[in-house]
Amino acid sequence: MKRAFIIASVLAFALGTSAQRLSSPDGRLTMEFSVDASGRPTYSLSYSDKMVVAPSHLGYQLKPEDPSKMTDFEWKTPAAAQDAVAQRADLLTGFSILGTEVSSCDEVWTPVWGEESSIRNHYNELLVHLGQAKNDRCMDIRFRLFDDGLGFRYEFPDQKNLTYFTIKEEVSEFTMTGDHTAWWIAGDYDTQEYEWQTTRLSQIDEQMPKAIAPNSSQTPAGPASVQTSLQMKSDDGLYINLHEAACINYATMHLDYDESRRCFTSHLTPSASGDKGDLQTPTTSPWRTIIVSDKATDILASRMTLNLNEPSKITDTSWIHPTKYIGVWWEMITGKSTWCYTDAVASVKLGVTDYEKVEPNGRHGATTEHVKEYIDFAAEHGFSEVLVEGWNVGWEDWFGHQKDYVFDFVTPYPDFNLKYLNDYAHSKGVRLMMHHETSASIRNYERHLEQAYTLMNEYGYDAVKQGYVGDICPRGEHHYSQWLNNHYLYTIEEAAKHHIMVNAHEATRPTGICRTWPNWVGNESARGTEYESFGGNPVNHTTILPFTRLIGGPMDYTPGIFVMDLSKWVPGNTSKVRSTLARQLALYVTLYSPLQMAADIIEHYKEKMDAFQFIKDVPCDWDKSLYLEAEPGEYVVIARKAKGADEWYIGCSAAECGHTSTIHLDFLTPGKTYTATIYADAKGTAWDNNPEGYVITTQKVTSKSVLKKLVAGAGGGFAISIK
Amino acid sequence: MKRAFIIASVLAFALGTSAQRLSSPDGRLTMEFSVDASGRPTYSLSYSDKMVVAPSHLGYQLKPEDPSKMTDFEWKTPAAAQDAVAQRADLLTGFSILGTEVSSCDEVWTPVWGEESSIRNHYNELLVHLGQAKNDRCMDIRFRLFDDGLGFRYEFPDQKNLTYFTIKEEVSEFTMTGDHTAWWIAGDYDTQEYEWQTTRLSQIDEQMPKAIAPNSSQTPAGPASVQTSLQMKSDDGLYINLHEAACINYATMHLDYDESRRCFTSHLTPSASGDKGDLQTPTTSPWRTIIVSDKATDILASRMTLNLNEPSKITDTSWIHPTKYIGVWWEMITGKSTWCYTDAVASVKLGVTDYEKVEPNGRHGATTEHVKEYIDFAAEHGFSEVLVEGWNVGWEDWFGHQKDYVFDFVTPYPDFNLKYLNDYAHSKGVRLMMHHETSASIRNYERHLEQAYTLMNEYGYDAVKQGYVGDICPRGEHHYSQWLNNHYLYTIEEAAKHHIMVNAHEATRPTGICRTWPNWVGNESARGTEYESFGGNPVNHTTILPFTRLIGGPMDYTPGIFVMDLSKWVPGNTSKVRSTLARQLALYVTLYSPLQMAADIIEHYKEKMDAFQFIKDVPCDWDKSLYLEAEPGEYVVIARKAKGADEWYIGCSAAECGHTSTIHLDFLTPGKTYTATIYADAKGTAWDNNPEGYVITTQKVTSKSVLKKLVAGAGGGFAISIK
Repeated sequence: MKRAFIIASVLAFALGTSAQRLSSPDGRLTMEFSVDASGRPTYSLSYSDKMVVAPSHLGYQLKPEDPSKMTDFEWKTPAAAQDAVAQRADLLTGFSILGTEVSSCDEVWTPVWGEESSIRNHYNELLVHLGQAKNDRCMDIRFRLFDDGLGFRYEFPDQKNLTYFTIKEEVSEFTMTGDHTAWWIAGDYDTQEYEWQTTRLSQIDEQMPKAIAPNSSQTPAGPASVQTSLQMKSDDGLYINLHEAACINYATMHLDYDESRRCFTSHLTPSASGDKGDLQTPTTSPWRTIIVSDKATDILASRMTLNLNEPSKITDTSWIHPTKYIGVWWEMITGKSTWCYTDAVASVKLGVTDYEKVEPNGRHGATTEHVKEYIDFAAEHGFSEVLVEGWNVGWEDWFGHQKDYVFDFVTPYPDFNLKYLNDYAHSKGVRLMMHHETSASIRNYERHLEQAYTLMNEYGYDAVKQGYVGDICPRGEHHYSQWLNNHYLYTIEEAAKHHIMVNAHEATRPTGICRTWPNWVGNESARGTEYESFGGNPVNHTTILPFTRLIGGPMDYTPGIFVMDLSKWVPGNTSKVRSTLARQLALYVTLYSPLQMAADIIEHYKEKMDAFQFIKDVPCDWDKSLYLEAEPGEYVVIARKAKGADEWYIGCSAAECGHTSTIHLDFLTPGKTYTATIYADAKGTAWDNNPEGYVITTQKVTSKSVLKKLVAGAGGGFAISIK
Repeated sequence: MKRAFIIASVLAFALGTSAQRLSSPDGRLTMEFSVDASGRPTYSLSYSDKMVVAPSHLGYQLKPEDPSKMTDFEWKTPAAAQDAVAQRADLLTGFSILGTEVSSCDEVWTPVWGEESSIRNHYNELLVHLGQAKNDRCMDIRFRLFDDGLGFRYEFPDQKNLTYFTIKEEVSEFTMTGDHTAWWIAGDYDTQEYEWQTTRLSQIDEQMPKAIAPNSSQTPAGPASVQTSLQMKSDDGLYINLHEAACINYATMHLDYDESRRCFTSHLTPSASGDKGDLQTPTTSPWRTIIVSDKATDILASRMTLNLNEPSKITDTSWIHPTKYIGVWWEMITGKSTWCYTDAVASVKLGVTDYEKVEPNGRHGATTEHVKEYIDFAAEHGFSEVLVEGWNVGWEDWFGHQKDYVFDFVTPYPDFNLKYLNDYAHSKGVRLMMHHETSASIRNYERHLEQAYTLMNEYGYDAVKQGYVGDICPRGEHHYSQWLNNHYLYTIEEAAKHHIMVNAHEATRPTGICRTWPNWVGNESARGTEYESFGGNPVNHTTILPFTRLIGGPMDYTPGIFVMDLSKWVPGNTSKVRSTLARQLALYVTLYSPLQMAADIIEHYKEKMDAFQFIKDVPCDWDKSLYLEAEPGEYVVIARKAKGADEWYIGCSAAECGHTSTIHLDFLTPGKTYTATIYADAKGTAWDNNPEGYVITTQKVTSKSVLKKLVAGAGGGFAISIK
């Protein structure tokens, strides 16, 4: 690591309200910081000659203190107490600059897994020390300006007059300079599983009612509140992305849009009592990030979110590995089989209901025989793990009952032989993947966590898929509050002690914490393939995800569906997957994850082993990634080099307009001949026309080759392996 | 156990609305049950010819279901859905009697510890099966009529149309027949530490503002809401006590008084979101209890609350033992020394703050040297345990910060040698008593519970005092909700696995669960001796506690203060203990607990070893208890026989008017001569006049002796040992 500090200690009065200026290493981005006439910290950001963020305020509104904790004088003088309470709650105004420090960093680090095998962390930094004389308090703001954007965070030093405090609201503004096009989902404290909306900023409020669809747990954040990562595009061609990094011990941020000021303001997820967070100095906020470029592909290539997170806290990472898996899952999601074992009881009680004596419903998915078939298939085709959902008792009443003791995470159903199946899998070089649905009963999960992880160690599981479906129990808490964010990370840290990798569904959206805790190998945090079974994801869905959901970290999207008309094999399910088969293959490249599922049932793969070959071949860990072409909501074309092998994989996912690519293979090793296998949509194939039509062709290629007229149909795509 | 069933299966139509009648075994109490014209279950209770509870309704208002969970038809027809939601939320009306069962029980059981070594459980029972045709649901109400009162509870059988439900409010009514005198404290979701009020029922609302004093956490329940156990006395001389038994997986009950109907209605403690409880059938409510007699002493002698709880779930109870202890505690409560180690930091972070390097404040109580003095004293004078508070890191910021990770329960301060002190104590035949202050940070305590109990096992602790001071974290939850009540019991059950006895302070008020979990040896749940250091408990306080707080179970009141004017040894503390020294001795008899502390500092005991002899002698487990004289708020005189020894102890606690007793010792073994030692107030001694004045006399006594003119001054008392 190379890090140079240039400390500028300047007296406060000398600085006054004069602006501080900072440039990115390549000089293209410039930010300014100043304190305005009322003492409000203010910043702006420019890209070349274009303003990205117009002058915007920074600060906090604190929760008023309980007057009973004040001094005797104030307590006994109500008017004085009231004034004092109001003044102390103000962490917005009355600031002056006490000093600044400027530094820079240029280092390269090696992720445990990722889109690249080494990542450059290169920025200039401005640390502003602010004093608030009226409360005798201080607060710092640290800005890091990269070539691809700006990150800033609040820092609260150890001090006498600010030790413990409760946030009423963070007031970080992001003032836009035009009526940009935005790709957004509705702000919500409990779900991220909304469809992406594409509107002008000025249309957010009018679009909001259409943006909120029913969900298993939802609490809309406000009439013009959106989630991050928020992708925008200005009329003059700038791509701007707002998100956060390292959201630790802090509530997840939404953004409230005020059209009159063209300004987004931070809006944190509240606790049950409406507070936004309890902090203790010394501490920091998460980073607020603004990724910006005039090229859409640069947004995808940005590593800012990871760079703003701390290095790995896990020293020995040898047990963490990218994982391609299959599972007993899609058949339950589609309604073909069930998670639960019986339909014959009104309700079940763990430890009371005798499952040996109840009548099975005959449709239970996680049976010993059925899982064996999956283990056999995984072993034969090189998948390292088999996820099995619905293996443990309690699924009869898993949803919607605010049930505290809903699962124990250790007791299998009578038809699931835990020991036998793990032994059998291991004998074939395969592992089972554990599943912990919590039903959002948080205390119950924590009470059983140690025992559940210990059982995993005992039977040889090394990865778990967690679920947090439904309203949080205790009721009133929200999925993305500080309290819940602390819970998710607690399960990750405890898992690390047990050498367990975690893939958390319905948990809060990622903010790059996987750098610090690389056993956090996946999240859902958006509509995944499951929605293809609930009516279908919008056709452009997978061309927006890389610009939004994936900015924070990998997604367990679970692609690989080969039969698009579900009614063909699931009586009563009229849903159609809004994708071609070729695009399903491409998603293994365009939606990066160290954890990739082949989600369809194995019977469907057995029918199309030629297409399935791509899923068998494609790795999920990379040396290098090239973002060839991209436009949010239209198409994404990415080429990636397998980690430690001279093999490349290319994927293209296209929306309603389809996409035609010409790809220069100049990234290949010069002088070497490769075989390219192209999995493309058949002629005329589109998501709504013969979606399972595909053509596989092979050709010899070199670094001088150009692949021309690679056509993706509407909702289609192509996938290429080059070996 | 002898149990006789007389099952009366009667057709519903034959019963109609005709009344069911049940009498107590001795025939003095009678209750009637019927269903009124609107189908509301209705009961009444009489004592001889006096009505105790006039006809009162029973039932529940449920939380309306989420319409999205309803059937397609209802969901798509909003008006139908609305009607259906309202109808299904009604568990109050439309009931009819499907059948009844009558039975009786007369058994004797042996408590692990208690006021008696065997307890008779004798009642007649009426079980009413109710059907609610409009919702095709059923609900049972079980009445148990003892000679000393009535208990009833709701029972919800397993059924198709009532599986999981959320309580909006329990609507159990208790209609009084006169403007009784009542001894009550304000209803509150977070504290029981209010002063007892003595008013007519009609004065509850006007007295309420005076009844609510500031507390470290408080949420008043309503303008006419009181806590149970509630003691009343009618103008025609009936003593009536309302409380609950076996409050498990359920919220603690308050009672709302409606003067216009002279009716109390149940009012459960809500969750953060306002719900009153989530239940799953089959299940039951706690018992609602009405103890009644024309003699005040019968209220104290009642074992109904214990009898309505389930037998012990702990099979091997050999490790549970009554415990008399001293501790490093009173010096902190009074302000003489501190729980915390340092004052030199703005705030502390566990695992970050290096206590070895911070400056100690020099006033820390739990030092190795100081605790050794206590161990020596305990060993010399026969105390089995020494409580030490403030031994573990984190006390600098323990209160008022909504701090999640406030304690780890395993790391001692640098000046407290955990291993050495336990070894030293054990070498002298003494144990240290653990202290777990949680600061009401519930999740943090549960996360550390297993480790904390394991540490206790490792070092040889077998008892823990828990604390729940301050607002519950997560904020918004209340101390007495279903969620918290489940937490307290969880810590008890986990403790039992580790053979640990628990004494929980600031937890919910007890309801006899100590029968089922006899390792739950104590609770605070009312103002204890600590308030004598915060301005003083009212003089009549300890004459009301036996009628109210102690109905549910033992209290760790921590008596035994020998120096009443605190300013004598704690500079700045102007508080005066509102009791004579002799009454402090009497409290060991009048306030039953298997856990009794000698709370004062050992220096004060060393100065008065003659008086201290009573505390050394008095046991805390009994074969028999005789309630000689009592009037709530005036005096309590109790005689108890030591368990397994022919020794008797008598205590008298008197309020402002003092009390003079004549005691016939006819309970002694005939023909045997004993030595009685009488510890009495010195002549003219009262709580506000020479309160430390006492006289000790001895005399020979037999079963024919009568002790005459035993005088207790104002706020005074006497204590007698007979050996």
